[in-house]
Amino acid sequence: MNYRAAVMTGIDALEIQERELAELAPRDVVVRVEAVGVCGSDTSYLTHGRIGGWVVDGPIVLGHEVAGVVERVGTAVTGVTVGDRVAIEPGTPCRDCRDCIEGRYHLCPELRFLATPPYDGALAEALVMDERNLFPIPDSMTFEEGALLEPLSVGIWACRRANLQPGDRVLVVGAGPVGVLAAQVARALGASDVTVVDVSDFRLDVAASLGFATERSGEGERRDFDVLLECSGAPGALAAGLERLRTGGRAAMVGMPKDAVTLPLSELNVKELTVSLVNRYAHSWPTAIALVADGRVDVASLVTHRYPLEETQDALLTAKRIPDSMKSVVLPNASDGGVR
Amino acid sequence: MNYRAAVMTGIDALEIQERELAELAPRDVVVRVEAVGVCGSDTSYLTHGRIGGWVVDGPIVLGHEVAGVVERVGTAVTGVTVGDRVAIEPGTPCRDCRDCIEGRYHLCPELRFLATPPYDGALAEALVMDERNLFPIPDSMTFEEGALLEPLSVGIWACRRANLQPGDRVLVVGAGPVGVLAAQVARALGASDVTVVDVSDFRLDVAASLGFATERSGEGERRDFDVLLECSGAPGALAAGLERLRTGGRAAMVGMPKDAVTLPLSELNVKELTVSLVNRYAHSWPTAIALVADGRVDVASLVTHRYPLEETQDALLTAKRIPDSMKSVVLPNASDGGVR
Amino acid sequence: MNYRAAVMTGIDALEIQERELAELAPRDVVVRVEAVGVCGSDTSYLTHGRIGGWVVDGPIVLGHEVAGVVERVGTAVTGVTVGDRVAIEPGTPCRDCRDCIEGRYHLCPELRFLATPPYDGALAEALVMDERNLFPIPDSMTFEEGALLEPLSVGIWACRRANLQPGDRVLVVGAGPVGVLAAQVARALGASDVTVVDVSDFRLDVAASLGFATERSGEGERRDFDVLLECSGAPGALAAGLERLRTGGRAAMVGMPKDAVTLPLSELNVKELTVSLVNRYAHSWPTAIALVADGRVDVASLVTHRYPLEETQDALLTAKRIPDSMKSVVLPNASDGGVR
Amino acid sequence: MNYRAAVMTGIDALEIQERELAELAPRDVVVRVEAVGVCGSDTSYLTHGRIGGWVVDGPIVLGHEVAGVVERVGTAVTGVTVGDRVAIEPGTPCRDCRDCIEGRYHLCPELRFLATPPYDGALAEALVMDERNLFPIPDSMTFEEGALLEPLSVGIWACRRANLQPGDRVLVVGAGPVGVLAAQVARALGASDVTVVDVSDFRLDVAASLGFATERSGEGERRDFDVLLECSGAPGALAAGLERLRTGGRAAMVGMPKDAVTLPLSELNVKELTVSLVNRYAHSWPTAIALVADGRVDVASLVTHRYPLEETQDALLTAKRIPDSMKSVVLPNASDGGVR
Repeated sequence: MNYRAAVMTGIDALEIQERELAELAPRDVVVRVEAVGVCGSDTSYLTHGRIGGWVVDGPIVLGHEVAGVVERVGTAVTGVTVGDRVAIEPGTPCRDCRDCIEGRYHLCPELRFLATPPYDGALAEALVMDERNLFPIPDSMTFEEGALLEPLSVGIWACRRANLQPGDRVLVVGAGPVGVLAAQVARALGASDVTVVDVSDFRLDVAASLGFATERSGEGERRDFDVLLECSGAPGALAAGLERLRTGGRAAMVGMPKDAVTLPLSELNVKELTVSLVNRYAHSWPTAIALVADGRVDVASLVTHRYPLEETQDALLTAKRIPDSMKSVVLPNASDGGVR
Repeated sequence: MNYRAAVMTGIDALEIQERELAELAPRDVVVRVEAVGVCGSDTSYLTHGRIGGWVVDGPIVLGHEVAGVVERVGTAVTGVTVGDRVAIEPGTPCRDCRDCIEGRYHLCPELRFLATPPYDGALAEALVMDERNLFPIPDSMTFEEGALLEPLSVGIWACRRANLQPGDRVLVVGAGPVGVLAAQVARALGASDVTVVDVSDFRLDVAASLGFATERSGEGERRDFDVLLECSGAPGALAAGLERLRTGGRAAMVGMPKDAVTLPLSELNVKELTVSLVNRYAHSWPTAIALVADGRVDVASLVTHRYPLEETQDALLTAKRIPDSMKSVVLPNASDGGVR
Repeated sequence: MNYRAAVMTGIDALEIQERELAELAPRDVVVRVEAVGVCGSDTSYLTHGRIGGWVVDGPIVLGHEVAGVVERVGTAVTGVTVGDRVAIEPGTPCRDCRDCIEGRYHLCPELRFLATPPYDGALAEALVMDERNLFPIPDSMTFEEGALLEPLSVGIWACRRANLQPGDRVLVVGAGPVGVLAAQVARALGASDVTVVDVSDFRLDVAASLGFATERSGEGERRDFDVLLECSGAPGALAAGLERLRTGGRAAMVGMPKDAVTLPLSELNVKELTVSLVNRYAHSWPTAIALVADGRVDVASLVTHRYPLEETQDALLTAKRIPDSMKSVVLPNASDGGVR
Repeated sequence: MNYRAAVMTGIDALEIQERELAELAPRDVVVRVEAVGVCGSDTSYLTHGRIGGWVVDGPIVLGHEVAGVVERVGTAVTGVTVGDRVAIEPGTPCRDCRDCIEGRYHLCPELRFLATPPYDGALAEALVMDERNLFPIPDSMTFEEGALLEPLSVGIWACRRANLQPGDRVLVVGAGPVGVLAAQVARALGASDVTVVDVSDFRLDVAASLGFATERSGEGERRDFDVLLECSGAPGALAAGLERLRTGGRAAMVGMPKDAVTLPLSELNVKELTVSLVNRYAHSWPTAIALVADGRVDVASLVTHRYPLEETQDALLTAKRIPDSMKSVVLPNASDGGVR
C-alpha cells in the first residue's frame, strides 16, 4: 500500500515522493492524514537544516501538528477503530526511564518525535502511529482544529509550568499562534486580566479580536503582572517581561531565543521570581480537546492559509512570504481521498 | 538609658558612639545583644557604601544576624519576658499588603530590615525590636548559634524555593557560610547525595569535614543532579550549575552576581528546568531552631573569628583580610554586661 | 448618628431596633448597606440559636453576605473614599498569629466574623468595617452581585482546596447556591465536564439552565470523576460521592453534616483519595470580582426573593417556607436612603 | 530448574512444595531470595483467606518484602547482572493507562503485586521478576535491610502524601513496623518533633529506643500537631488523631481499619484539615536505599525473629503468638544456597 509524502531532500528542497507503508507493529495504526499545521520549526528545518542541536542529515518528512482518520489498525489495537477521527500527540516515549515513570514522559531521553530528526513527520497522505498517541475528537471538531491541538498543548503546558492560578494577571509576549493560544488558555483557566504584546499590528489585531488587551512591544508600563508567558523568542523579551512581574511573580519561557539570554538576576532576585523553562507538553490532549470542544478556546480562526500536499513548500514558507499570516495548514487528502 | 553602637560614618569609617534608647512602642522589646554574625552585605556596605540599589546615605549601624537577652519589654508585650534568650528575625513587614496577607511577608514592599538603609542594625550593645521578631532559643543553644540562625534561614528558604524532595541529589555551588548551611539543610531534609563546589581549598575542607562530597569549581563531571543551590554569586556559576542538572531539575539562586547573568536558555529549555530566585527567607526561624537544637545542622563550627564591639571594623573586614575564614562574630557585651 | 438594624432577640424573634453608630477606629469605614444575602447559617441561628459550637447568647444582628456604599471613613483610611461601591469580606483576622503570618488568615483563632456570635452582622442600614475588609466593585456590578461574592468565595475556595486542574471532571453534590456557584467556578477554572446532583427538581433545573449536566441523587453511575465538591451536607453524601471518584481523586468537603459521617476508609484507601475539608475561604474577593465582572460566573440569577429590612424575618425563613427558592436578599436601604 | 516454595494451600495450611521456574520473558530475572519480611497482610491471608476485597481462591505463595541475589537474566536485561544484590519493588504496572502515564503507577488498575491474589509472592528460594522491579543495594546493606525497604517505602509515601514539611510536629499513631519506620522517615525529612503513640509498652519501648517521644494511646494532650500519620488501623484512631491536629493540619491514613470509620466532619471542617488516604507507595526505592545506606533510618533493629523457609508458618504467625515482636523475616536460602 503506497502513499504520497512531502519529503525534504535538502535545504529549501522538498519533493512529493511515493512511499510504501511500513509493516504495522501490533499496536500501530494507519492514519489518513487530513490536516497538518505548519510550525516555525518545520520552516526552520527546511530553510536552515537545523534547530539548535537537532540537525537534518538525510531525507525527512516534516510536520507534527496532525489530525486524520483511522484507516487500518494493528492486531493488538483496542483503543480506536477504523473510521475514528483522531488528533495525534507526536511524541512517543520509552515508558521505562525515570522521567517516564515519574510522569514526565515528554522529557524522556529516548523520545521519538514526529519531524524531529531522524524521525519522519506527518506531511503525507498517511502516517503510522502507535494507538497510544491517538486521541479521538468529537464530530463537531474539524480536522484543522484537531491538528491545532498540538500548539494549543504548548499553551496549556506553559500555563501549568507557570502554575497559573485563577485571578492571575497575565502578560503574554508574542502574538503568534502559540502566544495567542497560551493567552486563551490562561483566560480559560481563570486568569482575570490577560495582556498580549507583539511588534506586529496584524497579530495584535488578531489578539484584540479574541478579546485581549494588547500592547506594542516596549510600550507597556504596568508592573503588576502575576505571570509572564514568553512566547516570542525575541532577544531581550524575557528580561523585559520579567521586569514587569510583581514580587513573587512566575514566568514560563516558551520562546526559543537563538542566542544566549542575559538577565539582571540581582534585581530579579529581589522580587523572588520563578522562571520555568518549557519543553513542549505532557498530558495535555484531553484538556485541549475539552477546551476547543466547548468553545472556550478558538483555534479555528488562527488558520489564515490552506494548501494541498503538492504545495507544501509554499505552506512551509508562508510565514516568511506573508507577514500578515498566522497559521498555515496542509490538507494532504483534500483532493483525492487518501491512501491508495 | 544609653548604650554603645558601632556606627558606620562613611566608606571604611566606623566609630563607637554612645546612643540613647528610643522610647518603646507597646510591643517593643529591648534586647541586650550578645552575638552578631558578620555577613558579606555588611562588608559591602562598609567598603562600597552600597549593594545593588541600596545605598548608605547617612550614619548607619550594620549587622543583622543577632541573638541576645530580653532586657526590657513594652507595655503590651506578651510573648517574651525579661531574661529570655532570643534569636532575632531582622525583617519587619507591614502585615497589611497583599504579599503579607498571602504569606510572603519577606517580599513586603515596606519591609524594614536591620542594617538595610535607612534602618539601623544590631552591631551595638542593645537593640529595640518588636516582640514578633523574637524567637526564644533553648538554653542548650549558644548566642553565636542563635545569631547564625539568620544565614541558616537563607539555606532553609533556598531548599524550599528549590522544592527539595527526599532523595534528591543536590549540587551546592559556593562553600561560604550560606553554601555550607544550605548543604546541611538539604541533607537534613532528606537529600541523599550532596556535593559542594568551591574554588577555595580551605572552604572545601570545611565542607568535607561536615561530611559532604566536594569538588573544585569546573572539575565536576556529573550531570544527574536534581537540584542546584547556587550560593556563590560568581559570574558564570549559575550557567555552569544548570548544565549539570538532569531534565526536570530545579535550581535556587541565592548568590547575588554583581553583573547580569548570561544563560543558554534554548539548551536549558530542552531540559525544562525551573529556576527559582531567592530573596532572604520567610517562616524559617522555628525550623532553624529545631535543626540546630537537635544537632542536625552544625552552625557553631562555622565561626572562625570573634571580636569585641570595639573591633567591629576588623570583624567586618575579616573576609577580605583572612582568606581562610568562614564566619566572624562580634560579641558586643562580652566584656561589660550590656546596657548601662 | 443612628441607623436601624434587624436584631435577633431570641429564637425565632427578630425586631427592628434603632442603634447608634460606634465611634470609628482610624481605619474604620461606615458602609451604607445596600444588599445582604441570606445564608443557611443565618436561618439556623434564628431558628435553633446555634450552629455546631457557636451559640447565640444575646441579641445579635445576623447577615454576612454584604455590599454597599462607603458613607464615612476613619482618620487613617486610604484605600476607599466616600461614595465607593464595595463588597465586604466578613472576617477580620488578628494578623499576628502563625495562621495569619503563613497566609491562612481565615483560620486565625481570633477571627472576628460578621454574624458569628458574639459579633454582629450586616442586616442593618449601616455597618462599620475596617477598610481592609472592603473591596471596590465595578459600576457594572449590582449590589446584589456584590453581596453574593461571599458564597461565590466559598465556591472558589472549594476548588482551590480540591486542587482543581484544567480538564478535571467534576461532580458537585448539592445544587443550592453554594453548589451552583462552586460548579460555575470549576467551569471557569477549566473543568471540562461538570455534573451537578441534587434531590430537588427545582434546583436541578437551575443548574441545567446554567449549562450543567444534572442528576437526581442516587441515580448517577459514572465512577470516573477527578474531583468531588460536596456542597449538600446531606448524611451519606460524602461517602456516596467519594465512591464515584477515580483512583487518585480529590474531594473538597463544603457541606456541614449535622452528625458524624461514616466512611468506608479501607475501600477509599485503595483509590488513594484526598479529602480536603473547607472552612470558608481566603484571598478570594479579587478573583470573585473578576469572575463576575466578565460574566464567567452568573450570581445574579440565583436571587429568587427580595425583601426590605422590615421583612428580614420572612427573608431568613424563605428557604423553609418556599422549597422552590434559591437565594433571598435583604435590601436595607431600598426605601429610605440609608443612615439617618 | 526447580526451587522450593512455601505454598499456602488453605486457611492456616502451608506446605513446602517443589516448583519449576517459569520460562523467562526477555526482561525477566531470576532472583535467589535471601530475605523475606512478614507483613500483617500475609498473616491475614493465611488465617482469614482474605483482606478486604482480595480473596485467596487457590494455592498461593505469600510474601512481598524481598531482597536477594540475581541468579540468571533474560535475553534483554540490561540493568542488572548475575551476582547483583537487589531489593525488589513488588508491584508491576501496565505502564500504559492514565494512572501510569501520569506517574501514579501504584494505582494502575492492572497492577500485578506479589502475594496479592492471584499473583504468587516471594516466600520461596527463587523468584522471577521483571528487571524494572529490581534495585541494586550497596554491599554495606544486609538482605534483611533490603527486604525491609518495602515497609519503609510505606513510611516514605505516607510522609509524601501528608506533604510533610521541614519543622513539622508529627504524631504517629501505631508503633508497629510501619509506624516506627514512618516516624523515622518524618525525622529524616526534617520533622522537628515526632511523637509515637501505641497501646503496647513493648512497641513504645522500641520507639523510645529510636529516640522518639512516646505516649500510651488516649493519654496525650497536645493539640498542636501539624501532621498525623495514622499507622494503626485501630477503630477510632483516625478520629482521635485528627482531633489533635492544629488548624490547617494534614493527615495520612496508612492503617486499614476493618470497619467503616466515623468522623465528626463538622468539627474537623472548622480546622480545615486535609486527609490523604494511602495505598502503598511509588517512586520510593531510591529514597529508601539512600535513607538506610547512610544510617538515617534504622530498619535492622526492627527484626525480632528469623526463620528458615521450612518454618514459614511459624513466621507468619509470630505476631499472633508473640505479642512482644516487631518484624519476622524468613531466610529461604540460609541453609542450602538457593536454586538447585
